[in-house]
Amino acid sequence: MRRGIYQPLLLNEDRYFDPDPSVRFVARTLYEETRELPLICPHGHVDPALLADNSPFPEPTALLIIPDHYIFRMLYSRGVPLESLGIPARDETPVESDPRKIWQTFAEHYYLFRGTPTGAWLDHELHDLFDVTVKLDGGSADYVYDQIAERLAQPEFRPRALFDRFNIEVLATTDKASDRLDAHRSIRDGDWNGRVIPTFRPDAVFRIASADWRAELDLLSDSHGKPIADFPSLIAAIEERRRYFKSFGAAATDHAVVEPYTARLAPNDAQEIFRRALNGDATPADQTRFEAHMLIEMARMSVDDGLVMQIHPGAHRDHNHVVAERFGPDKGADIPVATEYTRNLSALLNAYGNDPRLTLVVFTLDESAYSRELAPLAGHYPAMRLGPPWWFHDSIEGMTRYRHQVTETAGVYNTAGFNDDTRAFCSIPARHDLSRRVDANYLAGLVARHIIDIEDARALARAMAYELARDTYRLASPPEAKTFHAPATMGSR
Amino acid sequence: MRRGIYQPLLLNEDRYFDPDPSVRFVARTLYEETRELPLICPHGHVDPALLADNSPFPEPTALLIIPDHYIFRMLYSRGVPLESLGIPARDETPVESDPRKIWQTFAEHYYLFRGTPTGAWLDHELHDLFDVTVKLDGGSADYVYDQIAERLAQPEFRPRALFDRFNIEVLATTDKASDRLDAHRSIRDGDWNGRVIPTFRPDAVFRIASADWRAELDLLSDSHGKPIADFPSLIAAIEERRRYFKSFGAAATDHAVVEPYTARLAPNDAQEIFRRALNGDATPADQTRFEAHMLIEMARMSVDDGLVMQIHPGAHRDHNHVVAERFGPDKGADIPVATEYTRNLSALLNAYGNDPRLTLVVFTLDESAYSRELAPLAGHYPAMRLGPPWWFHDSIEGMTRYRHQVTETAGVYNTAGFNDDTRAFCSIPARHDLSRRVDANYLAGLVARHIIDIEDARALARAMAYELARDTYRLASPPEAKTFHAPATMGSR
Amino acid sequence: MRRGIYQPLLLNEDRYFDPDPSVRFVARTLYEETRELPLICPHGHVDPALLADNSPFPEPTALLIIPDHYIFRMLYSRGVPLESLGIPARDETPVESDPRKIWQTFAEHYYLFRGTPTGAWLDHELHDLFDVTVKLDGGSADYVYDQIAERLAQPEFRPRALFDRFNIEVLATTDKASDRLDAHRSIRDGDWNGRVIPTFRPDAVFRIASADWRAELDLLSDSHGKPIADFPSLIAAIEERRRYFKSFGAAATDHAVVEPYTARLAPNDAQEIFRRALNGDATPADQTRFEAHMLIEMARMSVDDGLVMQIHPGAHRDHNHVVAERFGPDKGADIPVATEYTRNLSALLNAYGNDPRLTLVVFTLDESAYSRELAPLAGHYPAMRLGPPWWFHDSIEGMTRYRHQVTETAGVYNTAGFNDDTRAFCSIPARHDLSRRVDANYLAGLVARHIIDIEDARALARAMAYELARDTYRLASPPEAKTFHAPATMGSR
Repeated sequence: MRRGIYQPLLLNEDRYFDPDPSVRFVARTLYEETRELPLICPHGHVDPALLADNSPFPEPTALLIIPDHYIFRMLYSRGVPLESLGIPARDETPVESDPRKIWQTFAEHYYLFRGTPTGAWLDHELHDLFDVTVKLDGGSADYVYDQIAERLAQPEFRPRALFDRFNIEVLATTDKASDRLDAHRSIRDGDWNGRVIPTFRPDAVFRIASADWRAELDLLSDSHGKPIADFPSLIAAIEERRRYFKSFGAAATDHAVVEPYTARLAPNDAQEIFRRALNGDATPADQTRFEAHMLIEMARMSVDDGLVMQIHPGAHRDHNHVVAERFGPDKGADIPVATEYTRNLSALLNAYGNDPRLTLVVFTLDESAYSRELAPLAGHYPAMRLGPPWWFHDSIEGMTRYRHQVTETAGVYNTAGFNDDTRAFCSIPARHDLSRRVDANYLAGLVARHIIDIEDARALARAMAYELARDTYRLASPPEAKTFHAPATMGSR
Repeated sequence: MRRGIYQPLLLNEDRYFDPDPSVRFVARTLYEETRELPLICPHGHVDPALLADNSPFPEPTALLIIPDHYIFRMLYSRGVPLESLGIPARDETPVESDPRKIWQTFAEHYYLFRGTPTGAWLDHELHDLFDVTVKLDGGSADYVYDQIAERLAQPEFRPRALFDRFNIEVLATTDKASDRLDAHRSIRDGDWNGRVIPTFRPDAVFRIASADWRAELDLLSDSHGKPIADFPSLIAAIEERRRYFKSFGAAATDHAVVEPYTARLAPNDAQEIFRRALNGDATPADQTRFEAHMLIEMARMSVDDGLVMQIHPGAHRDHNHVVAERFGPDKGADIPVATEYTRNLSALLNAYGNDPRLTLVVFTLDESAYSRELAPLAGHYPAMRLGPPWWFHDSIEGMTRYRHQVTETAGVYNTAGFNDDTRAFCSIPARHDLSRRVDANYLAGLVARHIIDIEDARALARAMAYELARDTYRLASPPEAKTFHAPATMGSR
Repeated sequence: MRRGIYQPLLLNEDRYFDPDPSVRFVARTLYEETRELPLICPHGHVDPALLADNSPFPEPTALLIIPDHYIFRMLYSRGVPLESLGIPARDETPVESDPRKIWQTFAEHYYLFRGTPTGAWLDHELHDLFDVTVKLDGGSADYVYDQIAERLAQPEFRPRALFDRFNIEVLATTDKASDRLDAHRSIRDGDWNGRVIPTFRPDAVFRIASADWRAELDLLSDSHGKPIADFPSLIAAIEERRRYFKSFGAAATDHAVVEPYTARLAPNDAQEIFRRALNGDATPADQTRFEAHMLIEMARMSVDDGLVMQIHPGAHRDHNHVVAERFGPDKGADIPVATEYTRNLSALLNAYGNDPRLTLVVFTLDESAYSRELAPLAGHYPAMRLGPPWWFHDSIEGMTRYRHQVTETAGVYNTAGFNDDTRAFCSIPARHDLSRRVDANYLAGLVARHIIDIEDARALARAMAYELARDTYRLASPPEAKTFHAPATMGSR
């Protein structure tokens, strides 16, 4: 291993822009108008305890590698054992515990990320946050490790300081229905002004055929403070928990399902299925019908309480049983499946899709649905917006395909704006920056082809970078609340 | 609302062309060779009475907004009630009746169309047809309205004058099987020379499980002049009506189905299913089998009578029941579904796909089928051609994806040329112009990458803009009829 | 027909590169570093007898047209009868036997290939291999024919001489499980040093419901030298034949299925299904279960013997029964169907996908699966690599879509490198050259957008053109064997 001979890490100011000068010039102009806008983070997975505790981050490996399945699944795919990356095993399997050794393994395989968004985010994070100026590889591993570790020890690198430095206007976490939101309470009651809000995610109590279900229901019952002995008391508990989340500023709910199937159950059927679940007799078919009904119930409640409803369908979870059994869920083995929306969402949209009090943000891992189903649905139903490119598609090419395949049918204003969807707090600025660059470049392409003019592009760039996320999730602070499509500001700037 | 301060509306001469100079220069060259070619309109929804009566168009709102679901569905999706746009309700719901007020609402939301084909078409139409030189927004609404209204009052803006000005060589309408074609007769027997031809669309009499079916069958029987009491008499009626349509110049039939399923029924089964239908007992499953059989029957008849057969599958109609019940069908709530072609078309193609007397033009709303199924099928079966990008995909990006995903497997000469598919008569030139620009740009990209040379590109540009539509639909006037692939003209120009 | 007035055939040095100067310059640079690398051909359909016999190629029509379904299916699609192209019929149908007449028909329709990869390959082959400098059309047909025929008569155009001139490092053929590999033996035992290796393709003995199955099983039994009377003896026979293939240098197996369904059978079920097959009673459902089980068995054997396992799913074979009955299989009427991978491959990947001894290369004809299923699977499982764009997608746009849709999730190093997959021996250099150009251009686009730097691009270009194919298929000669991802060479060049 050569050490001491480093390649420079350079972040070009025009990165991700088309090289054609007429596109690049406009892209740069548009990006300059959005790059400093505050970050709206309406959907993500940052642990709120991070900001409640405000403890220093640990050393680089524990911060950047061990918790990030985007990173370790790629090394695993090329034969690097998860054990050697220090991923904690549920069983007795010993795993590497030397952070420098793990970091070295990571650095030696960092070339696998060439051309990937993870590579782009990490380079940005290393360069702009940690002031690293050399390319990461086997030779520079130690040098880079030391540089990051040195920065992490400084008070300016505490979570709250970074939150402020990142210019985050609001950060939504994702929390179980039974969560007591202690970290959110601590933040709210403290003297720091950062806006950190919970998101209500009740999936676990809808999965009535799952082995964990009863325990999850008991947790919900405990938080709720009342027994949940029948379907009406479940509904009452959920309604109460939503109010509780709202009291902590929650703006949205979130729902992960394999298929976005929606169908109303007759009241007796809902009660009967729930009874079977309480007896431990619910079948997968019961769960399918139950989840389909509960999605419609969630829309009904959103009409009442104003929480924005998000659906994230299409992930086949824990595809790799060997990995899931040894290392647990969320270890990079969630694989998408083809997802149908037109028929599946029909019952929900017919029930509440015409009601302007509902905002339903729909995501996909199946890009073939963008132009076929999702843009036509979002381009018709007042309640529906299309969520930004999700997960594997939260990338330069993925975002570009999304805009190309969605805009002509749904327009820009039926999309929900960007969210970073990350548990990697330090990567948040890199993710927003990449998104703003790619959107600026998309719009510059429209300008260069004379599809829109520069004035329209400027309005759209601001909407895509900031306003759409803020307004879709109803996150504007009351005094300055404006809907983005008021004619005076949008239609005739 | 600012009034009197207008932004200029400019149509760049190079719009929709790639900004790279080497592409743009070739695109412009190719476009200049096709822009003035006559318009072939082999599939559309213009009301023939418009040209039979030749009455002046009404004021702008009744012309451009109320009948155009491309427009009002976008406003609806962002919360503008259809009532406020004057869309007539079937029930007693009052709707806005002041055209200027509707126009103002439209203008204030016109920014929603940024980056959409509807925006591109409308800008073209406003600028080139109505001489509007300001951008439409809330501030310029009245000014633009007045300008259009003033033009519409002039004799040069009567439908026939526009037909001639648009340089339409032939315009096909879409007509029910029972239609007596009175408007077409009036045009044919009059002294105007415009070529307006009907298209035979018998869907309604194939939907044997629909509530309207019996009434539709009675209409067919009336037009036919004989009772339709069994399956053979239905077949005889359809054959007779096809001859009738042909006598008015019809070149094609058209068939809308959800799935393009084709399968032959045994004669007894066809008769038995038809009997159930006459008794009002046909089930959806019966209808599926009946439609599958009738598509093969349509192919058989096309072999005999030479009418080109079109299949438009994959639209889930009236997805929004609330809108459909209050405002009727075709109100912007038709949403595509994934569509299978390889297995579904097998029976029809095996029966008649090798017969050069048949031309079958297949469309799709599911772009994932372009490269997977449709280009391979069109690139093999002599009878099959792939229709142009349809509906949501009739757009700059949609057409570009189509060429990129289809050409390498099917070539250009297995595609059917452009059609505008519109009921908005005044938008026809804008739609053809956009298509010619996008195709010129696609070809210019091939030339710039040295995939084809400029001579090939010129031949292809002419084929895509004019010859393919004319020849696919067999619309060449007899004296000058040439098949486009005669080697002397195409192979060695 | 004009004769004697020919258009020049020019192959631009920068063909297939983006015209933007900053992309083109980098693309040219990268391409120059890979264009002369040896050709690795790990999957193809060249007849090994060609190289065993080393006889002169026949005249142009028999070489280029009659055996190439890529070519004749396109002419057929525009109405040229297969009989007129000399395609041998199984029945008594007379077919054209004059090669010049067939060549003339082909030349007159060569314009159909504008913008297709077949056109690009043929132009390359005509120009670079046969020194043709005029465009092929009806007028130049005879001239071009003569030119090719003259070259074919020269000793430098014998198959082995071309193999050497093409700089083929290794060429894999595709061979039935029962094949005795006589041609491979002849090559191995001769004095020519070309490396030609078989690939083990046992599909025919897995299709237990097929009419040919019993005959195929008997052939296998004959080669094996023992009776195959039950399931264990089938397994033993296959294991023995794999060893036999390995003794001739085989590196891989190959498996064509409609759906890549994998599921383990209980031993009794496997035996019972096999018993039914021996009795001629196997149903299509039996075959589906049997193939699903045998794919897992193939993975198990690959873990043991190190043969790389390839799956080619998704082709609906012989869609056109009329053509298949008259002209036999592989006549251009294989049409793709939508293909599911996530659930179908689950059993196999859970059984062996975590085992680094297995390399599983998965192909697709369904591009919608690239970003949705295949890149996520290849980006997780150590055993899996994604095969290059296959068949209809082995093209400029197809390869570009593949890189754009795959790389961000799977990276480049989970892809399997290029293969030409061809039976057209003389087209091999054209196919590799096109692939190297398109990959160079893709990488140049990343460099021009500052997503990767030029050093990374150079490493990736070499991997894509040469190393990935060599290493995925374990084809490095033992003395120089290096894994491509050794940190010293790849991570810190």
